[in-house]
Amino acid sequence: MRVEIWADIACPWCYIGKARFEKGLAAFAHRDEVEVVHRSFELDPQAPAAGDVPVLEMLASKYGVSREQAEAMESRVAEAAAGEGLGYRSDRIHGNTFDLHRLLHLAKARGVQDALLGALYRANFAEARPLGDADVLTAVAVEAGLDADGVRRVLADGDAYAEAVRADEREASELGARGVPFFVIDRRYGISGGQPAEVFRQALEQAREERAAAQAPVADRDAGERDAGKDEVGEGCGDGVCMPGAGAGS
Amino acid sequence: MRVEIWADIACPWCYIGKARFEKGLAAFAHRDEVEVVHRSFELDPQAPAAGDVPVLEMLASKYGVSREQAEAMESRVAEAAAGEGLGYRSDRIHGNTFDLHRLLHLAKARGVQDALLGALYRANFAEARPLGDADVLTAVAVEAGLDADGVRRVLADGDAYAEAVRADEREASELGARGVPFFVIDRRYGISGGQPAEVFRQALEQAREERAAAQAPVADRDAGERDAGKDEVGEGCGDGVCMPGAGAGS
Repeated sequence: MRVEIWADIACPWCYIGKARFEKGLAAFAHRDEVEVVHRSFELDPQAPAAGDVPVLEMLASKYGVSREQAEAMESRVAEAAAGEGLGYRSDRIHGNTFDLHRLLHLAKARGVQDALLGALYRANFAEARPLGDADVLTAVAVEAGLDADGVRRVLADGDAYAEAVRADEREASELGARGVPFFVIDRRYGISGGQPAEVFRQALEQAREERAAAQAPVADRDAGERDAGKDEVGEGCGDGVCMPGAGAGS
Repeated sequence: MRVEIWADIACPWCYIGKARFEKGLAAFAHRDEVEVVHRSFELDPQAPAAGDVPVLEMLASKYGVSREQAEAMESRVAEAAAGEGLGYRSDRIHGNTFDLHRLLHLAKARGVQDALLGALYRANFAEARPLGDADVLTAVAVEAGLDADGVRRVLADGDAYAEAVRADEREASELGARGVPFFVIDRRYGISGGQPAEVFRQALEQAREERAAAQAPVADRDAGERDAGKDEVGEGCGDGVCMPGAGAGS
């Protein structure tokens, strides 16, 4: 099974949702069958690269609320984060995340994507480190297992992995994601938002069970026919979702 | 809260999903706050209006499987239906559902949409009644509380409610629905497939809690400012999903 998670480093509910999803995954009996892939999504592509606007200031300005009200908004999210054992600082900086996503694609190529994603969330939300500063960002990437030279090369070349980031974003839009986090199981089930761990566990369970059910009649056939049959039935109406055309009579 | 459910009468998992959703809704403490709206979706718009192809024949042809294998596929779905206490007959007819959706919009205008939807599912899946036959369809609609004359007028005028059906279908596509059933809570959370009742209950719970959390700082303000503030914060990142632009700093 494959779970793709569209998320942005600047997104509090992506940070919280990652922890909740991982709790749900840990409670899923067949967790060993699950591959998790990070997908890029920018909430604010127009944000300045070297951001220096405090998040509280951005919130107050964006929502037209007082500093106190922005703090109250943040403290609700901080509570949810604390509920997952996550640090959460409201004195962090708001900035552009395009370079962070480019590095996440480098990290994917090196097999340390999940480590880097966790490190970036932690640096931003728990430690309020300014990730718009190339030295800070490089240090975080190195902590996650990347080599400093490789990181600097990617940061210096704005085209490196840029197309990979944009491809992820196009796909999010094609799949109808209107916000993040957006979780997609086997390109069949879409779950939006930082849902409770139990919702994720049940969705994984359900996706697996209904896939197994859809494949069952096929499994009775000769092994040689199995793959073709699996694909056909998988495109149909046997896994809890009926797809257009699946009911067509010809 | 408002739950919109895109579904097709010809879709087994929509039929099963409706029962599961209603079980989840019944277990939701704030069920009285939930409004449920049916939305139109056709799995097979090309199907003949007065269909006379048995579903088993259609399945065997569509998936290139034997009659026995089609029966095995159907018996898996029948088991899931039985698990929800629903009748399920594999000797039903495959046909076009456009007129059924037009009648569901008439029923919405008359306040009996849910009754008609339940009656159509039952007639198709539990009773294998041929809904492509205008007399049968009219009888089912009358059982659900519509007047026979009104039903006949809508069936005779192909334009009646046709635009309403197409508008629903356009919206499904804009929201990124790739199949049905597709459940959307407050235009924020999307859930695909006939998930277990508990998944629906938890999603409702979560949607409500996070909405309450997002509104809380606003509730501390003057009542007069409340509505404006609610909308602003609702568009932001406080209900479990962060929307593009919500993080923009200006």
